[in-house]
Amino acid sequence: MSSQVKPAVVLLSGGLDSATTLAIARNEGFLCHTLSFDYGQRHRVELSAAERVAKALGAAEHRVIRVDLGSIGGSALTDSSIAVPEGAPAAPIAAGIPVTYVPARNTVFLSLGLGLAEVLGAADLFLGVNFIDYSGYPDCRPEFIEAFERLANLATKAGVEGSARFSVHAPLIRMTKVDIILRGLELGVDYAMTVSCYQPDEMGAACGRCDSCRLRAAAFIQAGVPDPTCYRTWR
Amino acid sequence: MSSQVKPAVVLLSGGLDSATTLAIARNEGFLCHTLSFDYGQRHRVELSAAERVAKALGAAEHRVIRVDLGSIGGSALTDSSIAVPEGAPAAPIAAGIPVTYVPARNTVFLSLGLGLAEVLGAADLFLGVNFIDYSGYPDCRPEFIEAFERLANLATKAGVEGSARFSVHAPLIRMTKVDIILRGLELGVDYAMTVSCYQPDEMGAACGRCDSCRLRAAAFIQAGVPDPTCYRTWR
Repeated sequence: MSSQVKPAVVLLSGGLDSATTLAIARNEGFLCHTLSFDYGQRHRVELSAAERVAKALGAAEHRVIRVDLGSIGGSALTDSSIAVPEGAPAAPIAAGIPVTYVPARNTVFLSLGLGLAEVLGAADLFLGVNFIDYSGYPDCRPEFIEAFERLANLATKAGVEGSARFSVHAPLIRMTKVDIILRGLELGVDYAMTVSCYQPDEMGAACGRCDSCRLRAAAFIQAGVPDPTCYRTWR
Repeated sequence: MSSQVKPAVVLLSGGLDSATTLAIARNEGFLCHTLSFDYGQRHRVELSAAERVAKALGAAEHRVIRVDLGSIGGSALTDSSIAVPEGAPAAPIAAGIPVTYVPARNTVFLSLGLGLAEVLGAADLFLGVNFIDYSGYPDCRPEFIEAFERLANLATKAGVEGSARFSVHAPLIRMTKVDIILRGLELGVDYAMTVSCYQPDEMGAACGRCDSCRLRAAAFIQAGVPDPTCYRTWR
């Protein structure tokens, strides 16, 4: 690692938002250590997408940590007996916090990212949360990010001894999905590599009907750029 | 689950402090769901101790979540190439944060406990941290606990919707190790079941030389009660 380049830990799910976040972190000059989680998710194929995206966007290193959120359950994403809500492509997303909410997921992921950052000597953490065009998850809001940042500096040896002042960067948090896509394209993100769907098939092809697919598809239309998503219904 | 009894999630390592915490939570009338972590720890035998303690102290349920902190490393407890510091029984504990500090461990464990609490409909989390007779870990201090409690209520569906106001209880935090032992004995904790050592053998027998063993042994002596710990050197 060059002493000139600041290392950062970038949480990378393999979806559109986190891929764009990685491109932004790299564009800001960080040496990016990407981190994915094998957490018992229904859409585990996103891990292959994350690996592709990390490589394509020049991550210094890509890691996958196993954490068994399936043994907690309580979400359509980690409990196969709970169905993923679906809707027609043009229908509005239902209000409220949906059953795809995974209890404490971003808290768990940021905590593990914080541990890795401390070991690597990185003070910067990036994650792709967004609270404009989003699914209503509480752990995607600015007040959550601020509270985690505060915690990070109390929780760690690096924070307490002052060798690092942790910053949690959520560069997309106030952007619309359209702006995210346009910014990503500017930075060379190939969205064909990404998987946003909550229930893709084993090849990563999207359902087109879950909230995540619908938010993504609507944004490509609104942005006026071709949607490179591979949908199951088109094959 | 009775509607009269409040459920709580109790983090249980299998050591002296967490066993006492479980006894206190139960004594306060909570229905205790105990939670241990299989995190790549050197002293994995503590998981058997946790199971025994949970059963003996009447936990409603005991769970073990796997989370691979070994893939992060950076601690003598998760990286076997880093030696656990040792000292003569009566020697003082070295000042500063030791190499047995596991980066972000309590943040990760509390996050997973929070996820489980939300799924169970529990608003109360207990953990056995203590910052009087302790090893200098930053994530054992009152300000850390308060910051996590604040985060918990921003991070979760239950917190945001108001169905739960999360409380993180650290009943030992201002107690000396002696007071902890005396309180535990009052509540019927059998400390022979617990394992505090960082490097026990496969039967759970303690080394007597790591910081954790030395803090524990000194406290039994000071409390004037028999030390039921099984030490390797005595066999």
